[in-house]
Amino acid sequence: MSFKELKREVYEANMELQRRNLVIYTFGNVSQIDRDKGVIAIKPSGVDYNSMTADDMVIVDLENKIVDGHLRPSSDTKTHTHLYRHFAAIGGVTHTHSTYATAWAQAKQSIPCLGTTHADFVHGEIPCTAVLTDAQIERDYEEETGVQITDTFEHRDPMAAPMVIVAGHAPFTWGKDAAQSVYHAALLEEIARMAYLTRTLNPHSDVLKQEIMDKHYLRKHGKNAYYGQNS
Amino acid sequence: MSFKELKREVYEANMELQRRNLVIYTFGNVSQIDRDKGVIAIKPSGVDYNSMTADDMVIVDLENKIVDGHLRPSSDTKTHTHLYRHFAAIGGVTHTHSTYATAWAQAKQSIPCLGTTHADFVHGEIPCTAVLTDAQIERDYEEETGVQITDTFEHRDPMAAPMVIVAGHAPFTWGKDAAQSVYHAALLEEIARMAYLTRTLNPHSDVLKQEIMDKHYLRKHGKNAYYGQNS
Amino acid sequence: MSFKELKREVYEANMELQRRNLVIYTFGNVSQIDRDKGVIAIKPSGVDYNSMTADDMVIVDLENKIVDGHLRPSSDTKTHTHLYRHFAAIGGVTHTHSTYATAWAQAKQSIPCLGTTHADFVHGEIPCTAVLTDAQIERDYEEETGVQITDTFEHRDPMAAPMVIVAGHAPFTWGKDAAQSVYHAALLEEIARMAYLTRTLNPHSDVLKQEIMDKHYLRKHGKNAYYGQNS
Amino acid sequence: MSFKELKREVYEANMELQRRNLVIYTFGNVSQIDRDKGVIAIKPSGVDYNSMTADDMVIVDLENKIVDGHLRPSSDTKTHTHLYRHFAAIGGVTHTHSTYATAWAQAKQSIPCLGTTHADFVHGEIPCTAVLTDAQIERDYEEETGVQITDTFEHRDPMAAPMVIVAGHAPFTWGKDAAQSVYHAALLEEIARMAYLTRTLNPHSDVLKQEIMDKHYLRKHGKNAYYGQNS
Repeated sequence: MSFKELKREVYEANMELQRRNLVIYTFGNVSQIDRDKGVIAIKPSGVDYNSMTADDMVIVDLENKIVDGHLRPSSDTKTHTHLYRHFAAIGGVTHTHSTYATAWAQAKQSIPCLGTTHADFVHGEIPCTAVLTDAQIERDYEEETGVQITDTFEHRDPMAAPMVIVAGHAPFTWGKDAAQSVYHAALLEEIARMAYLTRTLNPHSDVLKQEIMDKHYLRKHGKNAYYGQNS
Repeated sequence: MSFKELKREVYEANMELQRRNLVIYTFGNVSQIDRDKGVIAIKPSGVDYNSMTADDMVIVDLENKIVDGHLRPSSDTKTHTHLYRHFAAIGGVTHTHSTYATAWAQAKQSIPCLGTTHADFVHGEIPCTAVLTDAQIERDYEEETGVQITDTFEHRDPMAAPMVIVAGHAPFTWGKDAAQSVYHAALLEEIARMAYLTRTLNPHSDVLKQEIMDKHYLRKHGKNAYYGQNS
Repeated sequence: MSFKELKREVYEANMELQRRNLVIYTFGNVSQIDRDKGVIAIKPSGVDYNSMTADDMVIVDLENKIVDGHLRPSSDTKTHTHLYRHFAAIGGVTHTHSTYATAWAQAKQSIPCLGTTHADFVHGEIPCTAVLTDAQIERDYEEETGVQITDTFEHRDPMAAPMVIVAGHAPFTWGKDAAQSVYHAALLEEIARMAYLTRTLNPHSDVLKQEIMDKHYLRKHGKNAYYGQNS
Repeated sequence: MSFKELKREVYEANMELQRRNLVIYTFGNVSQIDRDKGVIAIKPSGVDYNSMTADDMVIVDLENKIVDGHLRPSSDTKTHTHLYRHFAAIGGVTHTHSTYATAWAQAKQSIPCLGTTHADFVHGEIPCTAVLTDAQIERDYEEETGVQITDTFEHRDPMAAPMVIVAGHAPFTWGKDAAQSVYHAALLEEIARMAYLTRTLNPHSDVLKQEIMDKHYLRKHGKNAYYGQNS
């Protein structure tokens, strides 16, 4: 894939954030990797969605060096590259401050699996990271945000739960490419909203039973999946 | 009614789900039955609303065999056909994961009749099913979801409460045809939202008194109904 | 004012209900009185907003007899005429099931004056009626709904609190004409929403102090009012 | 800057209030100062956004005398001029009754810093003023509202927290010009909404730790800021 094509896909994915009401102003950023070339394209820092063009996307390598582009990359770039270096299966990353997912992040709580909407896309709870230590903040804030995320997935498959909420901050989601990482960001926001409503209606509502969690996740994602048009 | 006409009506009803903000992405599905032919038309599984056409609807018989169509039917098809086999008066079925109705489903609570908006359309509470047993999940998940619903209506007229919430999952609604089942899905979402707000404002708010429930339901639905333009 | 002009104003006010997201489907109704002729124009019962025309409005007298029109008037007509007979200063009446105002009605609670948004338009709490007695429901449900409202205002100026919530039902609002009654319906919904958020954030939040209530109401409505462009 | 240019900028900022859903009807007002000329332009009182033109803006001096314009200035003008006289660094002021910020004002609570969305723009809590005393209300209500605000900032830099909520009333925000004060009004509404959701989900959720507050604020605002495209 040429830089031009990579930038185009990342630009379209960023614009989708705005259409799905997941961001206001310049909030949020999406990237996608070209693993052959060892580079990502990512949104520039603090540029208005309405004036942004595909050519404004920035190409950086996995050590965060700018390879191509006339603008500064997103200030969250180091978190993105950390995730690409540690999660071999992912092709795209999205960061938003979407309202309900951010409320769970601010409450510093993982989102329990309360229903099949959640179980269809995420196997188990949507985890909340630990809060960064003072040493981490001083060392390298954005890189260490990535460390907190990958530590959270130490014993978990990141593709079976393609999303996380960073304590006191906001969500990150990922997928096979930029577009799918945005899709997961939109699903997370809806799941977070339903979980908020469920828990404020009934603070003691139980998580879904394990058998239904497995059934819903596997009918969409297992090798015997039967949802959708692909065999 | 020809297959083409049946598909057209079901297609229009599915598109209305999106216009009424009852679904995101490929969520939700609507069907309608032709009882003379013993078949239903239903939305295909996992197809984007924006690219879907009337011709993409799938015709299946009441034993879930595909009669006509080039795509796989909704993965919830068995729940639809179960309802058509057991509720003789219904002509259309809608399934959504609309936000507030799903929150009640996740809280595993029936929606009490708290006001006349509810009483105008549903006589009594909107019931929540029991959770599926492990045996049911192993047997045939979608068929057994239908069993849970029809068991819930064992002593109740499904046309006097044309909606149900499936515990841990989401709502199903029905009506005389596909369009009316969508209408009931939209009403359910609004009733669920009002009931959520009422109960979070005042957790001890009482249900509406029986005499007003009867009055409102019967002024719209009884043989002496005087709402609307039909005598 | 001719019947045609009266119908036109009432039609426009009804259409505004939909534009302000105060109604779904055929919910809601607005009327306006011509006190010289002793008649009101009111929305027909159960007609879709999108196909409704000004000519569909129905003219009825204050004893609820149809004077002009080819459709049945709103099933809530008797409540409207009761209000016109008892509140001499009002020229228009609106009934909606707007979401937050209806939640307060279902919680059977008056809306306390918690801030200046409320105080700018309503002097004191927005009252909730008593629940109808069984005798009232049997006698004449819609007429008695009007009686509950006028009883609630026995010791209060209906123009200083141009709105009420009917317990277990939904709001009615009024004003100098149909348009202003819709304006009050929209303000009520926003006030009800803010009060809901305030009370769920802090259940013990106090009402606004009397001096600020008076100041805000009188700077807009007293004889020394200085808000807006009229002296 | 000519009066015409000043009015144009203030007009555009006022219209943005409506586009961002921060106001309904004639609610809200924005002003901007020309410190060389010692005047501000401000929205007229009670004029509909849809019929308002740039020429309707009113020019007043810092003692609230009308210098130019054919309409009455906003009834909140004295609060605006008080802020310009006491906060030397500000160039624009916005007042709204946006829903979630007003709910916090009605709850008479400062908005704690619960996450980085807040920390990115405001250093520390968003303060709530004290309630006006009876003496203040009698003296000069709008001027004294300004006094409450400036008293609240006695030991705080108004540019490091460019927003306040007035107890029992609603928010005021400011910035280097009218446009930035509206931007801050929109950010406040989103921060207030997230904080509402966090606290209703978990009433005991802690504030963000000081080190992260500092880090986020300073990466955008300190002399070593690295967010955005400006060095």
